[in-house]
Amino acid sequence: MTAPARKAPPPERRFTTISDMEIEAVYGPADIADSEYDEDIGNPGEYPFTRGAYPTMYRGKLWTMRQFAGFGTPEDTNKRFHYLLGQGQTGLSTAFDMPTLMGYDADHERSLGEVGREGVSVSSLADMEILFDGIRLDQVTTSMTVNCSASILLAMYFALAEKQGVSLEKVGGTIQNDMLKEFTAQKEWISPPRPSVRVIVDMIEYCAEHAPRWHPVSISGYHIREAGSTAVQELAFTLGDGICYVQAAIERGLDVDSFAPRLSFFFNVHNDFLEEIAKFRAARRMWAKIMRERFGAKNPRSWLLRTHAQTAGCSLTAQQPLNNVARVAIQALAAVLGGTNSLHTNSMDETLALPSEPAVLAALRTQQIIAEETGVINTADPLGGSYAIEALTDRLEREAFEYIDKIDELGGMIAAIDEGFPQREIAEASYHFQQQLDSGEKIMVGVNDYVTEEEISLELLRIPQDVERRQVERVRAHKAARTASAVEEGLRAVRDAAAVDRNLMPPMIDAVKAGCTVGEISDIFRDVFGVYRDPALV
Amino acid sequence: MTAPARKAPPPERRFTTISDMEIEAVYGPADIADSEYDEDIGNPGEYPFTRGAYPTMYRGKLWTMRQFAGFGTPEDTNKRFHYLLGQGQTGLSTAFDMPTLMGYDADHERSLGEVGREGVSVSSLADMEILFDGIRLDQVTTSMTVNCSASILLAMYFALAEKQGVSLEKVGGTIQNDMLKEFTAQKEWISPPRPSVRVIVDMIEYCAEHAPRWHPVSISGYHIREAGSTAVQELAFTLGDGICYVQAAIERGLDVDSFAPRLSFFFNVHNDFLEEIAKFRAARRMWAKIMRERFGAKNPRSWLLRTHAQTAGCSLTAQQPLNNVARVAIQALAAVLGGTNSLHTNSMDETLALPSEPAVLAALRTQQIIAEETGVINTADPLGGSYAIEALTDRLEREAFEYIDKIDELGGMIAAIDEGFPQREIAEASYHFQQQLDSGEKIMVGVNDYVTEEEISLELLRIPQDVERRQVERVRAHKAARTASAVEEGLRAVRDAAAVDRNLMPPMIDAVKAGCTVGEISDIFRDVFGVYRDPALV
Repeated sequence: MTAPARKAPPPERRFTTISDMEIEAVYGPADIADSEYDEDIGNPGEYPFTRGAYPTMYRGKLWTMRQFAGFGTPEDTNKRFHYLLGQGQTGLSTAFDMPTLMGYDADHERSLGEVGREGVSVSSLADMEILFDGIRLDQVTTSMTVNCSASILLAMYFALAEKQGVSLEKVGGTIQNDMLKEFTAQKEWISPPRPSVRVIVDMIEYCAEHAPRWHPVSISGYHIREAGSTAVQELAFTLGDGICYVQAAIERGLDVDSFAPRLSFFFNVHNDFLEEIAKFRAARRMWAKIMRERFGAKNPRSWLLRTHAQTAGCSLTAQQPLNNVARVAIQALAAVLGGTNSLHTNSMDETLALPSEPAVLAALRTQQIIAEETGVINTADPLGGSYAIEALTDRLEREAFEYIDKIDELGGMIAAIDEGFPQREIAEASYHFQQQLDSGEKIMVGVNDYVTEEEISLELLRIPQDVERRQVERVRAHKAARTASAVEEGLRAVRDAAAVDRNLMPPMIDAVKAGCTVGEISDIFRDVFGVYRDPALV
Repeated sequence: MTAPARKAPPPERRFTTISDMEIEAVYGPADIADSEYDEDIGNPGEYPFTRGAYPTMYRGKLWTMRQFAGFGTPEDTNKRFHYLLGQGQTGLSTAFDMPTLMGYDADHERSLGEVGREGVSVSSLADMEILFDGIRLDQVTTSMTVNCSASILLAMYFALAEKQGVSLEKVGGTIQNDMLKEFTAQKEWISPPRPSVRVIVDMIEYCAEHAPRWHPVSISGYHIREAGSTAVQELAFTLGDGICYVQAAIERGLDVDSFAPRLSFFFNVHNDFLEEIAKFRAARRMWAKIMRERFGAKNPRSWLLRTHAQTAGCSLTAQQPLNNVARVAIQALAAVLGGTNSLHTNSMDETLALPSEPAVLAALRTQQIIAEETGVINTADPLGGSYAIEALTDRLEREAFEYIDKIDELGGMIAAIDEGFPQREIAEASYHFQQQLDSGEKIMVGVNDYVTEEEISLELLRIPQDVERRQVERVRAHKAARTASAVEEGLRAVRDAAAVDRNLMPPMIDAVKAGCTVGEISDIFRDVFGVYRDPALV
C-alpha cells in the first residue's frame, strides 16, 4: 500500500559518499541478513568491538576533549594550555612548529621564518619545562603531534616528569610517532622507513617496560585522509601501518600482549556522516580481528582499537567561516556516534590562521554541547543495527581488508611504500575528488556553489613579531650555558646506540637532561640512518 | 570475551532524554524483537510510513529550505525575501508582527510600539502586494505563520494571486492556522475554540474546492514544545489537534479524502538527537494509523504526514552565540534524518534580536551543507533499523497514543482544553525541566555550566526607527482612499456569513479586495464569536 510515487531523481545522477562509494536508495533487513549479531556485531565492550571499546561507553567516561594547540614561544602555548584547561578541556594536545617537527633548532638557518609560526618552538628540555609550567604531568594526559623527532620530544617529556618528581608509571599520554603515514601521506621525514620503524619499536619497547600509561605510537589515518584518500584507504593504510609496527615489535622479540594494549589510533572525521560512523565501527572490528587472529594476541585489551579523532581540516572553507562551525558540529557528532575515545574539533578560522581564542572556545563548546545537550551519550552505539550503518560498516571492512591483502602480497607496508603503492592510490583518489569538484558533481558550499560576496571580519590570532628573535636568543643562550663535555658525552651515547641497534630511549633521556637539543640529536639520525628521498622524485 | 570493565557511571546518575525519558545503557536485537519490518516499519513511501513519506525521499526532492522571515514594513521584508531566494532558499516563510497576528491594524492604539517589530506589518491587501512585489505566486510556495487572523491573511493572499493573474489552482503554500495549539501552548487568540475551529473548517473546505495546492492548516507541535512540553506531549497534542480538525471537517460533511491530503504538520526539533529522530518517525506512523484506521481514509495520500520543522528556539542561548550554530546544525540534521519535508534553521542571534543577514545566511548554509556535503540524502531513513531508534520510535508512539486515549475519554481536544488538561500537562513538564536545570541535573552549555566571561560583539539587526510612523500613515491613507460603500458592503457580507455558518472565505476575499483591513474583519470576529478568556485566569 504505497503512496503515489513522487518525482524520481534524474537517472544519470549518482548518489555516492564523499569517497565516491555508491549508496543504495534504501537499506533494509535484506542488506544485513548475513550478519550474526553475536559474532559480527557484538555488544559494546565485547569482541569484535563493533559497537564500542567499552561496555558502558560514554556513561562510564566521556571521550577526552583534546584541542590541538601550540604557537609562538613555550610561554605563549603554556598560556593557551591553561586557558583550555580552565574552560573544561580534559586533556592537552601539543602542536609543534615546523623546525621542531623536522629536527632543527630555532637557531638553525633552515628554521628562519618558521619559528613558532604553526606550532610551539621547542629546541631543548628548558623549552619543554616552560611549556608545561604549572602543569603536573601526573594530573593531565598529553598528546604530542610529532613524528620525525618524536623520540627526542618524548625523551624530553619523560625527563621533565623526572624533574617534577613524577614517576614514569604515572605519566599518561600519546605521541603521534607514526612515520609510515609520513611516507604515504604527510611527507615529513628525516630517515628512511626501516630505521624510522626501528626507532618506533625502541619507543614501544621502552614504554612497555617503563611508562605503562603512555601510548608510544598513535597510528594515524588523519593525514592519509587529509592527503585526499577515501575512507576505505584511510582504514586500510592506517591499519596496514599498525600491522607493520606490531610485526616489527614482535620481530624484536616482544610479546604482543606486552605492548599492544598501549597502541592507539587517530582517525579523521570527514563530512560524510554515515560513512564516517561506519568507518569507526569497521576500524574497531578489523583491528580486533587482526590482533586476535593474525597476531594471536590473548589479552582482550590487545584487541581494542582506541582512537583519537579530529574533524577534517580539508573540509573547512576560508569562505563564510561561520559555516565551519556547522560542519565541525556534524563531524564531531559522527565521531561520537562512531565511538571515538578522544576528539579534537577544528576551529572555524583554521583555514585562515591558527585558531583565535573565541574560535577555539566555540570548537570546544561544540563537544560539550554534544556531551551535555544532545543525549547521544545516554546509550552505547546508538546507531547500531541501522540497516545502512551496518551495511556500510561491512562494506568498508571488506574493501579495506582487500587493500590489506594487497599490501601483504607486496611484502608488507614498507615494501608497498618502496613501490609507491599507497602513495599512488591516495593521489588517484585525491585527483578524482578534485575532478568531481571541478565538474560540480561534488559541492563544497561556499566554494564551488552557494558563493557569497563577503568581507571576512574575523579577528585572527596574530603571532607576536618577536617570537623568532626571542627563541633564537634563548636557544643560543642555552647552548652557551651547557657543560660542553656532558653534551658531547650525551650525543656520543645516542650515536653509539643508534649504530648498534641498542634501545635509543635511555641515552636520549640522558642526552636531553645534559642539554642536548632537538637539532643536535636529529643530526645524529641524519648521519647514522641517512636521509630519505621521495621515490616519486628520485 | 569481554574487555575488562572500565569505570561504571555513578549509580545515582540518571540517563534521560531532554524530555526526561530514561534511556537504556545499550539497545540490541531484543529491544525490537516484537517489531515486524513490513507491518510496523515498512519501506519509505509505504504504510505506515515510519521510514518516510516518499519512496525516494531526498533523492527525489530535497526538503524545502524555508527560513522564517519578516520585520518592519512590507518593503523591508520583501527585500529579505529577495535576498533569501537569491541565496538558494527554496520557499518563503512569513513572520507577521504582533498587531497583524492579533487582528489589529497598524494604526490601532493597541499596536503602539509593536508595529513591524517582531514581524512584518500587514493591515491591508495593499501591504500584501508590496510584501510580494516581484514574486509571482505561482513561482514560489509561501508559508504564513498566522493563526487568529489567518483567514484574513489567506483571503489577502488569494486576492493577490487573482490580481497577479495567477489561478488559485496554481497557488501553493501553507498557512499555520492552528488555533487549538494556541489555547494549549502559545496563548494568542481572539475567539473561543469552537468558532475558531469552525473558521478553520471553512478554510479547509474552501481550499479543497478552489486551491488544491494550498495547505489550509499546519498542525503545529512547535509551540507546544517551546512551551516546555516533552516530545511525547508534542506528538500527542499535535496529532490530537489534527484529529479534532479532521473530525470537525467530517462533521461538516466533507469526505475525508477530499481534504486530508492537504493537511500538513509543523514540529519542533529539539536538542535530543535520538529522541527527535524517533519523534518524526513515530509521528508519521501514528498519523497513518489514525487516518486509515480511525477515519477510514482510503487515499494513501490522506495517510501521509508531511511536515515542516524548525529548530528549537528555546534551546538557543544568548550566551556564546556561536554555540547556537553548532546546536542548530545538530538539530537540523536530526530533522533531516527524521525525514522532515521542510525546514527552518534558527539563526545564532535569534535570542538577541531578529536575525541579521549574516546570521540567517549561516543558518541557511547549514541546511545546504547537510544537503550537499554530509551525504545523508543519499539513502532514505538512514537510521532505520537502529535498535535504539526503532525502540524509541515504538515507545514514543505508545506513550503518545496513551495521551490520545485520555483526550478521547475527556470528549475530544476542545473538551480537554476546556478542562485545562493539555495546558496542565505542558506546564508540569516545563516546571520539571526548569527544576532539572536549577539542580544541574540538566545542563545548558553557557547557561548553568561552561559559563564564560564574554562581551558579545554581534552586529544585530536594527528595525528602522520610523517603521511604525510610516505604517500608521500608510494605513490611514489607505483607509481614507477607499470607497466607503464598498467597504461597508464587504464587512456586512463577512458579518452575515459569520453569523449563519456560511463559508467565510468568499465574502472575506471580496472584502479585502474592497480594501477592508485585518483589524476591521477581526472586529467582526470579536463581535460575532466573542472573545476567549484563559480558563486558568477566569
